Amino acid sequence: MEPPCAPAIILVRPQLGHNIGMAARAMANFALADLRLVLPRDGWPNPDAGPPAAGADWILEAARMHGTIAEAAADCSRLLATTARPRDSRLPVHTPAEAAEAIRAAAERGLRTAVLFGPERSGLTADDLAACHGIVTCPVNPAFGSLNLAQAVLILGYEWFRARGAAGAADGAGGPERATAGDEPASVGEVAGLIAHLDRALEAAGYFHPPARAPAMRRTLAGILARARLSAQDVRTLRGMVAALESPRPRGAPGPR
Amino acid sequence: MEPPCAPAIILVRPQLGHNIGMAARAMANFALADLRLVLPRDGWPNPDAGPPAAGADWILEAARMHGTIAEAAADCSRLLATTARPRDSRLPVHTPAEAAEAIRAAAERGLRTAVLFGPERSGLTADDLAACHGIVTCPVNPAFGSLNLAQAVLILGYEWFRARGAAGAADGAGGPERATAGDEPASVGEVAGLIAHLDRALEAAGYFHPPARAPAMRRTLAGILARARLSAQDVRTLRGMVAALESPRPRGAPGPR
Repeated sequence: MEPPCAPAIILVRPQLGHNIGMAARAMANFALADLRLVLPRDGWPNPDAGPPAAGADWILEAARMHGTIAEAAADCSRLLATTARPRDSRLPVHTPAEAAEAIRAAAERGLRTAVLFGPERSGLTADDLAACHGIVTCPVNPAFGSLNLAQAVLILGYEWFRARGAAGAADGAGGPERATAGDEPASVGEVAGLIAHLDRALEAAGYFHPPARAPAMRRTLAGILARARLSAQDVRTLRGMVAALESPRPRGAPGPR
Repeated sequence: MEPPCAPAIILVRPQLGHNIGMAARAMANFALADLRLVLPRDGWPNPDAGPPAAGADWILEAARMHGTIAEAAADCSRLLATTARPRDSRLPVHTPAEAAEAIRAAAERGLRTAVLFGPERSGLTADDLAACHGIVTCPVNPAFGSLNLAQAVLILGYEWFRARGAAGAADGAGGPERATAGDEPASVGEVAGLIAHLDRALEAAGYFHPPARAPAMRRTLAGILARARLSAQDVRTLRGMVAALESPRPRGAPGPR
C-alpha cells in the first residue's frame, strides 16, 4: 500500500494516547504507515490509542519507540520539523504542500524523509530542531492558534497523498515532458490500429480463452495502452513487434523487420 | 475575521456533539465561522460540543439549527456536497482544492456557497444531494475508508484558507468581477420555492403516480433544476409558467401572466 520512501511520521514526546491513535488514523487515510514514537509520555503500547485509530491497528502495532530523534530517524536522509509558527532559525520554512513536494522529489532519488511532530502543549524545542533540514508550518487563522497533533499529521498526509498522486500521473505520462522531435503523442487512430492489430494477433494465437473473459481482457489491454501515452513512434515500434511475432522468420532469413 | 462570502458549513443530521465541536475547532483554524446544523441528532445546543471546540465558542454560539437543507442554505447561491466517494450522479466532482477555488471565484462575484457534510455513519443521501450543484470528494487511501466529519471539515477549511490567501494577493492586482445585473444566480431558497411551487402543481395534477415513485421523481426534478444553474430571473419566469399552468385562464381573458 505504501510506496517506497513514503515519509516516516515521528511523534516526539506525545502526551495523549488518544492523539497517537488519531494520528495513526490520519496516516491511514493518506496511505502512510511508518509511525515512530520518541519517548511517549505514557509509554508504549498505550491502550488509549486503539479506539481513536478506528481500525488503523497495523500502524500502531508496527510503531516503534525510540529514545532520541536521531535514533528514530536513523535510516532517513532528511528531517523536517513541524512547528506552529516559523521559528527564528536559519532553516528553510515550507508550507505543507511545499514539504510534500520536497518529500516526493527526495523519494524519487530513493531518499526517505522523516517528519517530526512535537508534544501537544509545547511543540518541538530548539534542541529537537537541531538536526532538522527544514521546517513545515501550516498557515492558519492567526486569531485562533495552531492545529492539534492529529490535524497537523492529517494535513501533512493529505499533501503527501496529493504530491504522490501527481507524481504517479507524471510517471504515466513518461516522466519529464517529451519535446523531442518524432515523439509526438500517437493519435487515437494510431493507437486503435495498434490495438486491432494486436487483437488479431492474440486471437489467432488463441489468447482470448475462455471466450467469456475476452471482453474484460480487451479492456485491460486498451487501458494499459492508454495509460502508456504512446508516441507515434512507440506505436510503429510496437506494431513492428506484433508483426514479427505474428510471422516469425527463420533465423538468418533476409528481410526487413 | 471572516471575509465576505466565506462558505457556510452545514452539518446534516450530525450524530455526536463531540464531532460538532471538533468541526467548529477546525473551522476556527481556517477562519471559517458560519456553522449551520440540520436536525442534529441530540438537539442543539449540545454541551458535548463545547470542550472539543477548544475555544471556538463563538462559532458554536452562532450556529443555527434548521429543519431542512433548503432552509439552512436559503441565502446561499451554490450548494456543494461532500461525499466519501464520487456518487453515481451527473453532478461535477471536485477535489477539495478545486472546490475551494470555485468557492473563492463565486465569492468574488458576491455569491455565497454552502458545503454540506453528512452524518458520521451514513453520509449524505440521494435526497440530500438532490439540490446540490457539485460534489466534493477528498482523495484518500482506498484501502482505509473515509475521513471523519471533523477531518473532512478541516481539509475543506485548509483549502479555503489557501484559496483565500491566493485571492487576497490577486485582489491587489485587480478588481473582482461582478455578475451582470439580472444574471445573479438564484439562491437556494429561491430554487426551493420554485420546487415547492412546482411540486404542489404537479401533485394537484396527479403527476406523482404511482406514489412509490414520487421521491425519485422529485429528486430527478431537483437535480435538473440544480444543473440548470438558474438565475433569479429564471426562477421568476418558471414560477410564472407554473402559476399559469396551475390556473389556466380562458382564452382571451385579460390580465397579466
